[in-house]
Amino acid sequence: MEKDKNVVADACSDKDGSSNENTSISFTDLSTFVLKRILSENSQKKTIIAEGSFSDQEGTAILFLEKTPFNEELLKCLCSTESTLEEQLCNDIYRFYTCNPELKYGGFKATIIFPATEKHVKKYEIQPLHLIEETSKLYYEVTLPHITSESFNIQWVYNILTHQQEQESIVFEDPDPNLGFVLVPDLKWDKNQVSNLYLLAIIHRHNIKSLRDLTDEHLPLLKNIQEKGSLLSDSTFYLANLVSCDMFCQEE
Amino acid sequence: MEKDKNVVADACSDKDGSSNENTSISFTDLSTFVLKRILSENSQKKTIIAEGSFSDQEGTAILFLEKTPFNEELLKCLCSTESTLEEQLCNDIYRFYTCNPELKYGGFKATIIFPATEKHVKKYEIQPLHLIEETSKLYYEVTLPHITSESFNIQWVYNILTHQQEQESIVFEDPDPNLGFVLVPDLKWDKNQVSNLYLLAIIHRHNIKSLRDLTDEHLPLLKNIQEKGSLLSDSTFYLANLVSCDMFCQEE
Repeated sequence: MEKDKNVVADACSDKDGSSNENTSISFTDLSTFVLKRILSENSQKKTIIAEGSFSDQEGTAILFLEKTPFNEELLKCLCSTESTLEEQLCNDIYRFYTCNPELKYGGFKATIIFPATEKHVKKYEIQPLHLIEETSKLYYEVTLPHITSESFNIQWVYNILTHQQEQESIVFEDPDPNLGFVLVPDLKWDKNQVSNLYLLAIIHRHNIKSLRDLTDEHLPLLKNIQEKGSLLSDSTFYLANLVSCDMFCQEE
Repeated sequence: MEKDKNVVADACSDKDGSSNENTSISFTDLSTFVLKRILSENSQKKTIIAEGSFSDQEGTAILFLEKTPFNEELLKCLCSTESTLEEQLCNDIYRFYTCNPELKYGGFKATIIFPATEKHVKKYEIQPLHLIEETSKLYYEVTLPHITSESFNIQWVYNILTHQQEQESIVFEDPDPNLGFVLVPDLKWDKNQVSNLYLLAIIHRHNIKSLRDLTDEHLPLLKNIQEKGSLLSDSTFYLANLVSCDMFCQEE
């Protein structure tokens, strides 16, 4: 992956929360990570999220580790004498082992958010969930002021829209300023299993902060995303239909 | 783990579906596994289940691979120069890597069911789910005949109750033939994270096939499980309360 650090630094310079210097930091291992606390862990999904810092850097860091999914190809690779089994238990026809795969098949996904703000820490911290039915009144009195004042810096979105980052990831782009969008793989997707396909459409139009901002004026935009997204899922990923099309508008 | 194969073979000899010979098979790797088809995969839970056979054995085999969960201790072990990061993407303060851990930290859990029956294959094959409210009439006309005729061989349960297998896994036993039970870690539990604690209480009484068989006569049995289970979860696992107590009666 090619990266022009200077271009990125320039693009970031007028946005809050992003520092020019930090864009040039890179990590080759986690030996300098100092754990402060575990924010959450999920044994079902095989994820863990930690708050910490790097001993040679100022600022908070969030480290997100996730095991990668299996697929048929990986399973076939594991069926070799290199991936050893260590018996844990055998009872009747049931046998349980620890499998020690070849080094290259045991890897997982690591996400580092650095420098992270207090908002990032809160976002990943385990907290009670509440289901709230948002009335129009609630939206204008509570949600909108919250979105306006508390939203995350979305520099990463502008980096994609202006081709300054993830250019090689772009699956499709319609450059029309009104109806256009950029389609990129979401980072939740492992880019391998089509059964798990997850693409993100980022629209070129600004100022749509929430579903509440959508009017019939935006129907051509929504239809454009649906039509071109479906065509693409068919031609590129061999799916008969775009399985579902969710909308996320509020800035994270 | 000690195992006396002969004792197991003797215990299995009068049960259907278990063969004396098969209890002595052991696997050290998966190189002889011949994949027939994928029965299901779950990218969220990082599991894959395959039907196949072993090239040097007769019979169907089910292979179930599951990545193991993270915990704080593992996270700390990964923070070393031995676990290398390979950058996949960097956008603003977000950085995504493939993490290649030291070999010993990349392992996962492998379950082999061999020889597997057609019922095992069906159990693990992906299939549409239905929610059915079972009336008493439905139970006696449909469910009970199904349980009676189609249930799995539960030799593994008798192996635990008679101390012929998993003896070293028993967390607690009340030997009373009426009120007693054996408490063992469920194989869904990784035996590490208390947050994910999952114990299985297997009662010494036979002939309770379903919740439908329970009457007020069984209340002392249920209370005994709840009380002793709670005491144990407190003293052994340092939990204030047994978090929940689910009941599974129908044979798998």
